[in-house]
Amino acid sequence: MRLNAQTDFSLRILMYLAAKQGEAATIQEVTNKLGLSQAHLMRIAAKLSATGLVTAARGRSGGLKLARSADEITVEDVVKAIEPDFALVQCFNRTDGVGCTIEPACLLKGVLYSALNAFFAELRSANLAELTESNRVDLAEIFRLTDSRLESRTGPQIYQAPAQVKRS
Amino acid sequence: MRLNAQTDFSLRILMYLAAKQGEAATIQEVTNKLGLSQAHLMRIAAKLSATGLVTAARGRSGGLKLARSADEITVEDVVKAIEPDFALVQCFNRTDGVGCTIEPACLLKGVLYSALNAFFAELRSANLAELTESNRVDLAEIFRLTDSRLESRTGPQIYQAPAQVKRS
Repeated sequence: MRLNAQTDFSLRILMYLAAKQGEAATIQEVTNKLGLSQAHLMRIAAKLSATGLVTAARGRSGGLKLARSADEITVEDVVKAIEPDFALVQCFNRTDGVGCTIEPACLLKGVLYSALNAFFAELRSANLAELTESNRVDLAEIFRLTDSRLESRTGPQIYQAPAQVKRS
Repeated sequence: MRLNAQTDFSLRILMYLAAKQGEAATIQEVTNKLGLSQAHLMRIAAKLSATGLVTAARGRSGGLKLARSADEITVEDVVKAIEPDFALVQCFNRTDGVGCTIEPACLLKGVLYSALNAFFAELRSANLAELTESNRVDLAEIFRLTDSRLESRTGPQIYQAPAQVKRS
């Protein structure tokens, strides 16, 4: 049982955008920071845009941004928007037309639906802000984000500005 | 997000065996009742036997049986025994050697592990006996099981013995 790779990458991209706190990120930037291929990222960004999770603006000051505040996007929102389906067993996917002989008297379905709902409830309990806010220094360290708000909050001794920024 | 087809079919096979209450079932019988191909069923039966969920005996009086009492096998036992992995995202599967740049500071992992544990907890709450006992008449109707214990418990008016058995 796995999530689709697109869902995995979508969560990483959205966490990166959440860590930028409203600042736009270019495709090239996200590609570099997350180590994804540009073609792959373009496809996922189009999907994130189509599902209303990010906005994508063209031009020099353009780029990807979260479409809503990071505390308004839960992990459940992302997983449900990107994952193709949650057909744990064949009968969950009514459209495939293949029957299971047990189905008319099956009590297993209910157990699996309960398990799926318990899974979603946990994902609903965490939003992108929570995943990035409390952990912002560590993530900034990984992403080498420049952010004066972060420095003023945590002190520059923890936040290491990247060499390129130091030089400018 | 789906369970593997082998897990789906394993659950059906084990529910069928649970409904037989200790009586052995031949491969041919399970194939017919569940509408699975014989080759497919042979592979799954070998796996169920290897994981200690069923016993398989050769010969005329042989066949497949649950290796333990139906109330001692939970849905979680089956899913964990048959599903290849639960690597929801790449970093859950440490052996694939591909890194995620966020991993060292990732709070998402914990949320996904909690969700997976909530999923397992629901599956743990149901065993094969519960899935078949309370629903035994309906399942017997589907499977056309002959079972004197069932008739004495529920009355023969509900349980329709198959034509073939009536003739003998």
